[in-house]
Amino acid sequence: MGNKAPLTVVKIGGNIIDNPIELVKFLTDFSKVDGYKILVHGGGKLATKMAESIGLSPQLIDGRRITDAPMLDVAVMTYAGAINKNCVAQLQALKCTAIGFTGADGNLILSEKRNHPTIDFGFVGDVKKVNSELLFSLVSLGIIPVFSAITHDNKGQLLNTNADTIASEIAISMSSTFEVSLIYCFEKQGVLANSEDENSVIQQINALDYAELLENKAIHSGMIPKMDNCFYALNKGVEKVIIGNQTLLSNRNSIFTTIKL
Amino acid sequence: MGNKAPLTVVKIGGNIIDNPIELVKFLTDFSKVDGYKILVHGGGKLATKMAESIGLSPQLIDGRRITDAPMLDVAVMTYAGAINKNCVAQLQALKCTAIGFTGADGNLILSEKRNHPTIDFGFVGDVKKVNSELLFSLVSLGIIPVFSAITHDNKGQLLNTNADTIASEIAISMSSTFEVSLIYCFEKQGVLANSEDENSVIQQINALDYAELLENKAIHSGMIPKMDNCFYALNKGVEKVIIGNQTLLSNRNSIFTTIKL
Repeated sequence: MGNKAPLTVVKIGGNIIDNPIELVKFLTDFSKVDGYKILVHGGGKLATKMAESIGLSPQLIDGRRITDAPMLDVAVMTYAGAINKNCVAQLQALKCTAIGFTGADGNLILSEKRNHPTIDFGFVGDVKKVNSELLFSLVSLGIIPVFSAITHDNKGQLLNTNADTIASEIAISMSSTFEVSLIYCFEKQGVLANSEDENSVIQQINALDYAELLENKAIHSGMIPKMDNCFYALNKGVEKVIIGNQTLLSNRNSIFTTIKL
Repeated sequence: MGNKAPLTVVKIGGNIIDNPIELVKFLTDFSKVDGYKILVHGGGKLATKMAESIGLSPQLIDGRRITDAPMLDVAVMTYAGAINKNCVAQLQALKCTAIGFTGADGNLILSEKRNHPTIDFGFVGDVKKVNSELLFSLVSLGIIPVFSAITHDNKGQLLNTNADTIASEIAISMSSTFEVSLIYCFEKQGVLANSEDENSVIQQINALDYAELLENKAIHSGMIPKMDNCFYALNKGVEKVIIGNQTLLSNRNSIFTTIKL
């Protein structure tokens, strides 16, 4: 394989997006990460706030959230518009050549409308393919891509997509060319052995540990798809996968969880 | 100078953006334009509608529109989010490698907050510099840039900017490398000798004609800055400047106005 250049894919969620002070701190730390890098951001409260102010209420079927057409518009406006472009402007001020993308831009992330046997999720897309050639060209120009979690079907339809999945798919797509580290930042310091105890961060989890943690129900609900994304990425060639909070980028003594095969 | 490759910069306004059928027709025609190309789009009714639904009313000082912070958020959401990404998704469906940009992306359009002696226009930016090197690199990759009229000050602040000016500044910035045609599409077939008579399109206007038309008040109000942008572009190296309606891209018999020095 030879020596590949390092590339870091960092995903941040609503807890950082919704906190302007934390966001600036995070972007400052991110701007200092060595080597090639890509940022993926989730949504945050802005979409909910916008939806409420224009009189939309979240559509749920069987307790699962549906993206109807008006809600998709709100997602595109807030994720790809407000949040994305504000992150880009702040990164530019930090001397990063950031460019904001959705999956529609340059057909960078092609997805297909979710086809579920019983639930119509609306305008939700599952990733089919990352345009790794174009993404590689852009990164090679010195560009730092900033992705919002909006993709498209290449037939003119934008689709709302899970940001964790976008991060893992991008990391995988770049792993034939780069030595890729994938970092999921969220509200906790890492994966907890006991979800009630913030100090119970597990520093390393392999597939066997994961199976046990699932059985003990130490890992449950929203953490399961996140963990699945981590193992999926490692299985598909990503070198290193970490789950932790945003301070791990700057603090060498930070505690976090490393996921191993 | 040698033979330069042709590049066409097309600017569309709210009359096309607000009409989904016209927009698809236009984008289809645009996708067929030979050579390198760049699209610049204005706003449209969506921003006004969004502002109204969240309870904002347009701020005016001395009859001039002010972009306060909430209105800037709406502009970023609708122009850079909804309108831009929908145009991009539709162009991708037409096999164009479109990528949507604001001026913040890659510091492509640096502007400064308008400094007016008596009126504080709020978050309005006047263009200072187009990053022609990066724009050239992107265009050379086969990318078709789609610009919304949002720029930044490179200090982290997004700014609302006139779309006509963005189009002329981009056209100028590309004219040392390309033979640039700049096309302004608007609701009329061209510049009218008599604004009451849609059939009075003037097919060619030079600087002398323009001075006369100004004196006769045949050209007034909003047409003046548009015409000024045209002459500015021609004076700064743009090869060809046309004002007309969107059908001129597909209809060889279309009537339009060519601006000459």
